[in-house]
Amino acid sequence: MPDLPFLPFCVLLGGLGLLCVAFVGAWCQHWRGGFSLDGSARTFNWHPVLMVTGMVVLYGAAALIYRLPPARRGPKLPWKVVHGALALAAFILAVLGLAAVFRFHNAHGTPNMYSLHSWLGLVTVLLFSCQWVAGFSAFLLPWAPNWLRAFYKPIHVFFGATVLMLSVASCVSGINEKLFFSLKNGTTEYKLLPAEAVFANTLGLLIILFGVLVLGALARPSWKRPDTDSPESHQPLLTAER
Amino acid sequence: MPDLPFLPFCVLLGGLGLLCVAFVGAWCQHWRGGFSLDGSARTFNWHPVLMVTGMVVLYGAAALIYRLPPARRGPKLPWKVVHGALALAAFILAVLGLAAVFRFHNAHGTPNMYSLHSWLGLVTVLLFSCQWVAGFSAFLLPWAPNWLRAFYKPIHVFFGATVLMLSVASCVSGINEKLFFSLKNGTTEYKLLPAEAVFANTLGLLIILFGVLVLGALARPSWKRPDTDSPESHQPLLTAER
Repeated sequence: MPDLPFLPFCVLLGGLGLLCVAFVGAWCQHWRGGFSLDGSARTFNWHPVLMVTGMVVLYGAAALIYRLPPARRGPKLPWKVVHGALALAAFILAVLGLAAVFRFHNAHGTPNMYSLHSWLGLVTVLLFSCQWVAGFSAFLLPWAPNWLRAFYKPIHVFFGATVLMLSVASCVSGINEKLFFSLKNGTTEYKLLPAEAVFANTLGLLIILFGVLVLGALARPSWKRPDTDSPESHQPLLTAER
Repeated sequence: MPDLPFLPFCVLLGGLGLLCVAFVGAWCQHWRGGFSLDGSARTFNWHPVLMVTGMVVLYGAAALIYRLPPARRGPKLPWKVVHGALALAAFILAVLGLAAVFRFHNAHGTPNMYSLHSWLGLVTVLLFSCQWVAGFSAFLLPWAPNWLRAFYKPIHVFFGATVLMLSVASCVSGINEKLFFSLKNGTTEYKLLPAEAVFANTLGLLIILFGVLVLGALARPSWKRPDTDSPESHQPLLTAER
């Protein structure tokens, strides 16, 4: 199989990620009334924007950080910090995104956590938070023994990919659900496929494409950082040694 | 990382797959009125049952066939045939499942192919059909050269996992959508989380768990069939040699 150059792929993927954020922002701004913090439907609009930006785009960037050519050689520690920081930023956006939907529901007396979308979304964010804490504890704190790191690394990698898949599935079910809500009693029903429906369905497909490309990049053997056993590659964050 | 024994895992996974089929069948039979071919909502009920059985459970079985201990050694050809046959059975069930929903829509004058669920589902089945034809042509017909097989194999493996992920995402969005339709004007609304909603949401989580476990099993290096370059491992189906 011919070896793809990583950087053009990375530029394409970055463009696709920005397109996802632009699409979800434009959907909420143009068709759903924009943004506010007053508990109205405009508060809800933060939910899709923050979840797509955090749990898909920033998360994808965090997952791929070790595939950047400068990260494939030399000290691993700075890239670990960037990886953890991007994942933390993704997590913070996700929590804010959850706060937006809870605030909207509570302001309208709508029950929380009843749909399959909400169950899946919460499972995804909870799994991600466990993943972040476990990753930080094992790979950045100094007291985790090397055998634990070696044991946990494939689990961390596997659940990293799993959380991305669950995020994408959550986004798809959420967009689908929102369109059924929004277009049910609007000027044009979803089933008549108005421009908003085409636009938001396209957003869903773009998110899926982004997720599949990230998973494909993660799976490419030639883009992986060589798994050296040098002490440096096990360098924790909080240690005096360097 | 300790090596899990494959067979107990396989029994667990098989039980989970059967549970998914039992859950989707029970949902449609007990809460959605059962099955018929008359174009009514009972015709629609074939759709979730056939899609879950075909695109998730049978598909997962097809994906994992090379991980069975007897398939990891000895002639590959019989296992290729079983893999292709299971995938074909999954494809036939998926086509019948699509036929059920189109028949239901057409009988009720409901437009087809407007929701994100339908777009994603159709993309998934189309990708799966391309995957099946390409896999059959490259790995079972005698005229595909070895360089083409070697080139296409990682692509086939990657898209195999991708189609499973897309199937699971389609099922989740479909169950979510169906519950919004069914419980909107029923005796109990979805947001009040009646027993049917808990049951079908649980079905969604079981399908996700099944998909994640299949992908985890596919990713385990120790369960992979050694990638020998013996002529037998490239044995096509339609050849006189043996």
